[in-house]
Amino acid sequence: MSLSRFLDLADFTRSEVEDLIGLANHLQSHPEPSALQGKILGLVFLNPSLRTLASFQAGMARLGGTSFVITPGQGTWGLETRLGVRMDGSAAEHIREGLPVLASFCDALAIRAFADGKDLAADCADTTFKAMAALVDKPFINLESAINHPCQALADWKTLNDLSIAPRSKFVLSWAPHPRALPLAVPAAALHMAALRGHDVVVARPDGFALPAAIMARARVAAAQSGGSVTETTDRTDAMQGAQILYAKEWGCTSAYGDAAVDAALRATLGDWQVTAETFVGATADCRLMHCLPVRRNVAVADEVLDGPRSVVLQEAHNRLVVQMAVLHRLLA
Amino acid sequence: MSLSRFLDLADFTRSEVEDLIGLANHLQSHPEPSALQGKILGLVFLNPSLRTLASFQAGMARLGGTSFVITPGQGTWGLETRLGVRMDGSAAEHIREGLPVLASFCDALAIRAFADGKDLAADCADTTFKAMAALVDKPFINLESAINHPCQALADWKTLNDLSIAPRSKFVLSWAPHPRALPLAVPAAALHMAALRGHDVVVARPDGFALPAAIMARARVAAAQSGGSVTETTDRTDAMQGAQILYAKEWGCTSAYGDAAVDAALRATLGDWQVTAETFVGATADCRLMHCLPVRRNVAVADEVLDGPRSVVLQEAHNRLVVQMAVLHRLLA
Amino acid sequence: MSLSRFLDLADFTRSEVEDLIGLANHLQSHPEPSALQGKILGLVFLNPSLRTLASFQAGMARLGGTSFVITPGQGTWGLETRLGVRMDGSAAEHIREGLPVLASFCDALAIRAFADGKDLAADCADTTFKAMAALVDKPFINLESAINHPCQALADWKTLNDLSIAPRSKFVLSWAPHPRALPLAVPAAALHMAALRGHDVVVARPDGFALPAAIMARARVAAAQSGGSVTETTDRTDAMQGAQILYAKEWGCTSAYGDAAVDAALRATLGDWQVTAETFVGATADCRLMHCLPVRRNVAVADEVLDGPRSVVLQEAHNRLVVQMAVLHRLLA
Repeated sequence: MSLSRFLDLADFTRSEVEDLIGLANHLQSHPEPSALQGKILGLVFLNPSLRTLASFQAGMARLGGTSFVITPGQGTWGLETRLGVRMDGSAAEHIREGLPVLASFCDALAIRAFADGKDLAADCADTTFKAMAALVDKPFINLESAINHPCQALADWKTLNDLSIAPRSKFVLSWAPHPRALPLAVPAAALHMAALRGHDVVVARPDGFALPAAIMARARVAAAQSGGSVTETTDRTDAMQGAQILYAKEWGCTSAYGDAAVDAALRATLGDWQVTAETFVGATADCRLMHCLPVRRNVAVADEVLDGPRSVVLQEAHNRLVVQMAVLHRLLA
Repeated sequence: MSLSRFLDLADFTRSEVEDLIGLANHLQSHPEPSALQGKILGLVFLNPSLRTLASFQAGMARLGGTSFVITPGQGTWGLETRLGVRMDGSAAEHIREGLPVLASFCDALAIRAFADGKDLAADCADTTFKAMAALVDKPFINLESAINHPCQALADWKTLNDLSIAPRSKFVLSWAPHPRALPLAVPAAALHMAALRGHDVVVARPDGFALPAAIMARARVAAAQSGGSVTETTDRTDAMQGAQILYAKEWGCTSAYGDAAVDAALRATLGDWQVTAETFVGATADCRLMHCLPVRRNVAVADEVLDGPRSVVLQEAHNRLVVQMAVLHRLLA
Repeated sequence: MSLSRFLDLADFTRSEVEDLIGLANHLQSHPEPSALQGKILGLVFLNPSLRTLASFQAGMARLGGTSFVITPGQGTWGLETRLGVRMDGSAAEHIREGLPVLASFCDALAIRAFADGKDLAADCADTTFKAMAALVDKPFINLESAINHPCQALADWKTLNDLSIAPRSKFVLSWAPHPRALPLAVPAAALHMAALRGHDVVVARPDGFALPAAIMARARVAAAQSGGSVTETTDRTDAMQGAQILYAKEWGCTSAYGDAAVDAALRATLGDWQVTAETFVGATADCRLMHCLPVRRNVAVADEVLDGPRSVVLQEAHNRLVVQMAVLHRLLA
């Protein structure tokens, strides 16, 4: 399998995903410290990061390559993404110059650009990110866009493999509380990953927080191909019956997308969606908690769960490094 | 040619510049991935950067070396540059300690320090930057000082070579609009570069924005040595007749240097200095647009020009990497 | 001597310290550019840095390894350190996730986390830092904690060796002025270093700025073992009689720890604790000034001293690189 872009796990078949994870496993047992010697990865962060920032630098180094980090607005000019605009505001540089220039300095470029959170259709279509990707004529990696986070999804898939979680087992993607609206990228990516892996996926979320219909529809197609299913409910207790995985994630109100007041009013009443020990009543004895991190302790998930045996959040995070090395290897070796 | 400092393109003869560009071309066709093995470049940015930040890290990596980045005020103590001052303000560290210490950790140090924009004579004399350079007993690179940007000038020279632009052709350095006053470093460096390369240089700028007399005089000397010329005008339309190169650049008012109110009043009436397709009426058919970037689209230069065939701004930016590798090679190999 | 953590110079005997410095000296004369090939150091800075940030990156590079830098709150999520807290504030990530995750990406982790400056007992016990260290199952380095700065202390020890300063000579640790209260980490570490090296240490500080009794007591034990002594006084002139070393350092009021108003009122009258040429009256002819940097010129120390022959502050800073390479070598080679 050749690879020139890593934008969306949905671009891959189930066997292609397993192939990538196979390479990740191989690189774990058979390190290749010179595979990317002389190769340079450019990392552009329009939004904060911890795992992605550290693991991509570490991954390049473990394969013998190097990287540089650009953080627009922090030591680097602010970047304008809108086309045709008169640039008389704070952004000093347009992506039409900035991204091709950065790409010309390195062998692969990777970009993080979160959702604007104002226009649901534009965010679901990943309009801005796709415009950025179109400006880059080098291998390209999505470090989280408006509606996608393929590195997280690939790491989660590997984590499920590592834990020997059966594909047809019940996977509950549950909305979780947070002080404010967060993007749809991780829930959309996790949903698709679980569907493509063949799970019986239940999306548990309050009224007002349904995932967009296009996201659900695409996941249902993937589930059908893999022998799984995708349903949704507002009753998390019911969803958790027989669950093997609880994938907790915070996201913003979709019924009035981008309306902070409506979002705040809705979430003010939803604190009991926090994941606690009690949330697992009716689940399998070894039902696991997954979360992409960062997680707000005792808001989204209680200490008792994060510090207990159900939590596999650290394994997921470590797998970010492991699977991204496979992606980098495919793109650059 | 041995090299211990890269501070000002004017320190070099025309043939020494061509020699450096020859090395740059050679390294493009004959990479030397181990030339700087074990060598460390310290990069100090007192002001924002994109191209410089990324290309120096990439250049060191392509030659087998490494680098570290220090951004005073962002994760690092603010740096005081004034001598004899009582340091009871926000800056916690003086350059008299900070720079020698950083130099002692690496094999070469490179610094970006923009103009204060208050005292024209001090900025033209590059007083602060020269004081910094004097503190460093290692190979030293100017990443843009108050009045100079030799890496940009060298990249621009190579770009003119790459495009086979004849030395005696007409080179118009044109003032361009910007929301606020920018430093004189790039216009001064581009003017000198074009004069030293032997162009017939015309500086087109509004009243109030004349380049300082000392800068103009120095360029005229260089032009005379190379068979070119340097003139200036307030009539850009006239300047563009027969032009082969339009080098657009924004800078601040010099008639009342550092007076933001005067500057703003003057530039409020000068929006039509924006470079548009019409600006090229009377120029050669293949007249090119050059700009150091970042460029404010539809303020300094219109989309139609930046996205059209006249623009070579991406080539200039890529050449930053290419020529800087030659500079690093000369300093450290 | 095997080494898995470098948290506190007091964890080492005098001969173990000399052993580490011996390795540092050896690496200076016999570079090992491949000793840490393939090794990755994670550097986490919860507070600003110049020397530490640059020298650890440079040190890893000089030994053939690499590093990445994480600066929570600047491009990275803010980190919560308190246990059991409901995370509905600005910090998005807890150290209980963040640190183990970062540790899982690298071969050694190093953290800077200054004192809170509110609870003297907690700061003296290094509670937060020890909690962080307990979360990391990899080699671990203290880049300055609430009450310690072992890298600085080790560099200072080597500087004293380099200058052939006799162990039993008089070492004056003097409080110095600063616009605001600074942490106790460096004075505590310098005091212990000098005591363990066997000096006759005099702590000269104004009323209200006594070092905590536990810090003094621990240093007295170390001094007794090494044949030195530890005393304190409010009379710096007296302390300086016969002094071989003046180690100047700023720190906050301890009599009303964390009370900014009391601290400010006290220090408003203490400007004459600035180190000037006159401060050395009665000291040995070659009495040296030491300071960890950054230093506020003409507030803590006068230009005349910093720019004169007594100052060894640049040597101390350079030795940061040198001794840290020995620490990294012991931890990772």
